[in-house]
Amino acid sequence: MKIVIDAMGGDNAPREIVKGATLALGKRKNFGIVFTGDEFLVKKELAALSYDVARVEVKHASEVITNDESPTSAVRNKRDSSLVVGLKVLKEDAEAGALISAGSTGAVLTGGIMYIGRIAGVQRPALCPAIPNYRGTSTLLCDAGANADCKPSYLAQFAVMATAYGRAAYGMENPRVALLSNGTEDHKGDIMHQEAFALLSETKGINFIGNAEGRDLMFGDYDILVADGFSGNVALKAAEGCGKTVASILKAEFSKAKLSYLFARKQISKVRSILDYNRMGGAMFLGLKKAVIKAHGSSKAESVAAAVLQAVDAVEGRTVEHIVQMLPQTAETKEE
Amino acid sequence: MKIVIDAMGGDNAPREIVKGATLALGKRKNFGIVFTGDEFLVKKELAALSYDVARVEVKHASEVITNDESPTSAVRNKRDSSLVVGLKVLKEDAEAGALISAGSTGAVLTGGIMYIGRIAGVQRPALCPAIPNYRGTSTLLCDAGANADCKPSYLAQFAVMATAYGRAAYGMENPRVALLSNGTEDHKGDIMHQEAFALLSETKGINFIGNAEGRDLMFGDYDILVADGFSGNVALKAAEGCGKTVASILKAEFSKAKLSYLFARKQISKVRSILDYNRMGGAMFLGLKKAVIKAHGSSKAESVAAAVLQAVDAVEGRTVEHIVQMLPQTAETKEE
Repeated sequence: MKIVIDAMGGDNAPREIVKGATLALGKRKNFGIVFTGDEFLVKKELAALSYDVARVEVKHASEVITNDESPTSAVRNKRDSSLVVGLKVLKEDAEAGALISAGSTGAVLTGGIMYIGRIAGVQRPALCPAIPNYRGTSTLLCDAGANADCKPSYLAQFAVMATAYGRAAYGMENPRVALLSNGTEDHKGDIMHQEAFALLSETKGINFIGNAEGRDLMFGDYDILVADGFSGNVALKAAEGCGKTVASILKAEFSKAKLSYLFARKQISKVRSILDYNRMGGAMFLGLKKAVIKAHGSSKAESVAAAVLQAVDAVEGRTVEHIVQMLPQTAETKEE
Repeated sequence: MKIVIDAMGGDNAPREIVKGATLALGKRKNFGIVFTGDEFLVKKELAALSYDVARVEVKHASEVITNDESPTSAVRNKRDSSLVVGLKVLKEDAEAGALISAGSTGAVLTGGIMYIGRIAGVQRPALCPAIPNYRGTSTLLCDAGANADCKPSYLAQFAVMATAYGRAAYGMENPRVALLSNGTEDHKGDIMHQEAFALLSETKGINFIGNAEGRDLMFGDYDILVADGFSGNVALKAAEGCGKTVASILKAEFSKAKLSYLFARKQISKVRSILDYNRMGGAMFLGLKKAVIKAHGSSKAESVAAAVLQAVDAVEGRTVEHIVQMLPQTAETKEE
């Protein structure tokens, strides 16, 4: 199995990307890496690291897609960008199972659909990150921002795809699925979410429990939260903001009290780690013919390594095949 | 000035409600309280407290509205409930400036519209809580859940009403208004939010800065976040969940390490207090002819006291009059 990595995407590329990927190589033996990006720069980073050389390839790409440019025109025109070259490798190399990029989210989503393509029957691919929760496990949020305007039938598919992903990559037996709404009662939600609730209740093959609230993202009482891409993104950013806010407050308070910090160090770092976004790796883009993972733009080596291992799990677990198998179950309900 | 208090609403009524209200009496001299609810029970609670007796009235109400019943039928049929009796006092007593209830949100919203009425020109009254942020100040979120289905013109009015409220009750000079969206770039959002963005950009009298994300609710870089009631509620609950999650994690970690706790106690309580929801009081229901405030259902004495002082500020600051003055400015843009 090969994991393709866009070495040039993200705030800390290529250094942290390359470093993180080689860290992951040390943790599992069953995969190789194909870096795409500026060959000179990537090899310069690699030269400073110790890793199993036989498991690493570098494919040169002369261009880089930035956050400032229009995703659509960028992926169309920058054919020799590290992202597009990577997507082509993922598509054409039978051994390549997944691509990871910390670059422009829009470009990864657009490029993924353009070069890898949707699984037949998927209305809208969706972004599905794993959110750290109070239990120290993770909650899958789908859609976390790929589709701002959603129809009820999209959300039913998000539930099915995330269920398949949870089983395949996270060892979830019968994941509890909830719909992110403005209250837990069945009647809550705007018109679209009320229709989605009815559709989810009919959808076969998923363990739909009912409505959940923003707070449930962090409590960990559900395995999967289904959301429209707009409010899903609001919830994701709020949870992310929580971790950052708490980290900042802890830092501010304890920097004034060194002795207290000395005694509380262990507990503080535990609190941080539970709320730490980076340990969760990246967000899987569900619904494509091969695994595409968007890593956080600010990813450091540690989170890149987590994203690589997550990609390996997703491929080993045959996520795509599980989605293909489960997808018809939503179709059935849609006819009703 | 009189503040009317539904003594029977909320998980800890009447004890914590009555206790909190009398606490508030001790902090300011310029207002009186009218409790509505079971006279026997309320007076029993009062008997155990020391407060300025001359500033407290109790108006008997034989019924209580619960969270389980339909808000609309409850406020229609339970004419002698502590909430409805309170709303009637607020409407009829010229000295009464605000009502506070920790009871059913739906009943408070429905009852407020039914008995107090909208300000002329207000399309939809909106729920506007103050969220604790990293700076230790508060961010106004409007709408936090009163209107799940929103039109762009509603959001423009939310911005105007919250600006008037921020100036009147929170001493905000020229509050920075942002639109809660799925990204900070101007083009972000679903169709409804893109239209709202355009409308907010044209709205006179507000200081509209652009789009904000879920995380901005806790960072405190904006004074007001305008949102549709659905995603606003998702963000509110997520922020609330954050505080609870962190409190739980801190408790879990430090209960295993008493000595560390001893040394870090001061800092930990500071962290908690910054994220503490209760210190912010209640959520103002903006757009009614008099101030109606929904306190958190789980309110304890401390947060009830905060809500009472918040009500006093809102009345002293002439919030309603400010809204009446500013409202025409949205109307202008609506014609364009």
